[in-house]
Amino acid sequence: MLNFDFHNPTHIVFGKDRIADLAELVPATAKVLILVGGESAEKTGTLGEVRQALGARTHSTFSGIEPNPSFETTMKAVEQVRAEGFDFLLAVGGGSVIDAAKFIAAAVPFEGDTWDILLKGGRNIDKALPFGTVLTLPATGSEMNNGSVITRRDIGAKLAFRSRHLFPVFSVLDPTKTYTLPVKQLANGVVDAFVHTVEQYLTYPVNAPVQDRFAEGLLQTLVEIGPRLLVSPEPVYDDRANLMWTATLALNGLIGAGVPQDWATHMIGHELTALHNIDHARTLAIVLPALLNERRAQKRDKLLQYGERIWGITTGTDDERITAAIDHTRDFFERMGIPTRLNAYGLGREAIDVVIRQLDAHGMTKLSEHGDLTIDVSRRILEAAL
Amino acid sequence: MLNFDFHNPTHIVFGKDRIADLAELVPATAKVLILVGGESAEKTGTLGEVRQALGARTHSTFSGIEPNPSFETTMKAVEQVRAEGFDFLLAVGGGSVIDAAKFIAAAVPFEGDTWDILLKGGRNIDKALPFGTVLTLPATGSEMNNGSVITRRDIGAKLAFRSRHLFPVFSVLDPTKTYTLPVKQLANGVVDAFVHTVEQYLTYPVNAPVQDRFAEGLLQTLVEIGPRLLVSPEPVYDDRANLMWTATLALNGLIGAGVPQDWATHMIGHELTALHNIDHARTLAIVLPALLNERRAQKRDKLLQYGERIWGITTGTDDERITAAIDHTRDFFERMGIPTRLNAYGLGREAIDVVIRQLDAHGMTKLSEHGDLTIDVSRRILEAAL
Repeated sequence: MLNFDFHNPTHIVFGKDRIADLAELVPATAKVLILVGGESAEKTGTLGEVRQALGARTHSTFSGIEPNPSFETTMKAVEQVRAEGFDFLLAVGGGSVIDAAKFIAAAVPFEGDTWDILLKGGRNIDKALPFGTVLTLPATGSEMNNGSVITRRDIGAKLAFRSRHLFPVFSVLDPTKTYTLPVKQLANGVVDAFVHTVEQYLTYPVNAPVQDRFAEGLLQTLVEIGPRLLVSPEPVYDDRANLMWTATLALNGLIGAGVPQDWATHMIGHELTALHNIDHARTLAIVLPALLNERRAQKRDKLLQYGERIWGITTGTDDERITAAIDHTRDFFERMGIPTRLNAYGLGREAIDVVIRQLDAHGMTKLSEHGDLTIDVSRRILEAAL
Repeated sequence: MLNFDFHNPTHIVFGKDRIADLAELVPATAKVLILVGGESAEKTGTLGEVRQALGARTHSTFSGIEPNPSFETTMKAVEQVRAEGFDFLLAVGGGSVIDAAKFIAAAVPFEGDTWDILLKGGRNIDKALPFGTVLTLPATGSEMNNGSVITRRDIGAKLAFRSRHLFPVFSVLDPTKTYTLPVKQLANGVVDAFVHTVEQYLTYPVNAPVQDRFAEGLLQTLVEIGPRLLVSPEPVYDDRANLMWTATLALNGLIGAGVPQDWATHMIGHELTALHNIDHARTLAIVLPALLNERRAQKRDKLLQYGERIWGITTGTDDERITAAIDHTRDFFERMGIPTRLNAYGLGREAIDVVIRQLDAHGMTKLSEHGDLTIDVSRRILEAAL
């Protein structure tokens, strides 16, 4: 096992009817800016529940945070917070709204050009506004970690940052809040959580059996509940609850503690979203199978373990078993209704050059658990994903 | 899945050569009282490393905290802290020293009779001194939770308390610090962590597959590494690291979040330790197999799952499979060198009446996940453990 630090102070408030707990969770004297995406939080009644729980506290609502939240939109919220003196943020939504809240929390007290936060990956953050979240879309895990990704539309850049000051104080996870989600968003959530788990698991063995089994437990659970989410005529509480808790645990630092990690799939995927506005989870489904195939030598031992423990593959040569494991992975994404080929999104060979240029421009030239996934390798992965 | 809260702010600092990190982890202006058990922390050089990392900070050492730490000893430390104005505690040792640190941390600022902390189970704690830990004995999980058990020798009472104010600020987990432990203490650690896991897992199903698989991952890991710890001529770093992280995760609140729990084995075991000074883990090994057999109806579904997933039992009638699962459990403890029968500790039928009286006196009359494990059932369990 590798040395590690694990420190995650977010208070998880999980279950039915927990939004009322905001009455105790939010400081009594807080002046709260509620952050939301589109209309759905209002329409579904969730915002009404939130406002009722806030009671006599002063609060206002900032809406319009888009999927893949932008620097431009979040800076409008920063200006409002500074002008009106809000001292607590409450994100109500999915990963995009929560990521936006993290940027706003860091930017409000930041001295200097707030774009520098993204250029430095958050290393220049030394304080932040406190914030909590009410999660309505299980997928990104942002509700229990200190990372965020913000997109700058004018230059087509999607950049990540993190800081120990950016853990949510609390996150309310009520599985019934997922009941109104479109099937497409549930499928995206399953795939996003699956790939987060894989990126902390499918590297090389370091004799960390607990981390392996925890990761495998999350993957097995997603494989079980994922297809059911697509066909259930009525929402099943336990399926929604298990998806929600699995997605949170897939990226709260626990399964990645003490093991190598490979975030190349995310880094390549981010460029596809920034350039072509493909849903984040769908970019991961495009990149991952091709990446696993390209990197079968580097990931051999763990690919065999993954094939056996997740997909029950125990016969054939090593290479046959690895191929079968990758095929099962691709098939799982396709069964979730998520195409795994670039051409299904209208992209051909001509799109690859631009992605490669952007990866180069963003310094993504030594990716993976070994730091040896160069631009040339990224090109081969994208060509294999056509 | 049941509703739950999960909130664990302890910073884990894991790996080789991490004691030097105390230089940053302990506040620069802290006046530190180091808490230790016997001579070993000094002899092995661990205390020297700790003092070096503390640098110019004012510090002193309080030694003599016994296994199953006593109210009497911890109150001496409370008096020293109050008299000399220490403002940070640093526990260097295993669960006993850490449990003692929690009581001292709560008692120092407590107004009134500190015994009330134990009588109220910690519900009357509204503040505590900050404290960190350097773990040298993996077993209890106290390094990453907010619970503690203190014994009052004069009345033979062993009482638990907890408070949200009692999470360690940080815990340094260096697996090499276990290299000097006697085999008996390693074996106790394996069994303690195993039983902690079982008590949050072997109840009844609530459709929480992630919690189940996490618990099973811890149990499988203990079954793998446990016997190796007894026979290795030289300490194997990864085995020690995996034991340490497993024992921490077995009782940090994670695997018990959202599922029923059954702490009856601990409650009955505490009385055996208080009356007969049997090592804590050994009392658990005595009680658990007898309890599982007595409660096979209430725990049927999970016993079958446990038998299949941990011990590979897939044939026979349900009752045969459950019997085999319990037999494997008893055999595992015995293979760890820990006897599972009261008579192996010199206790016969005459000892049971006293234990039962103490359980009654301490209000332990409605134990288990159903609250239906009465004094009469506890008696049957103890008789079956003869």
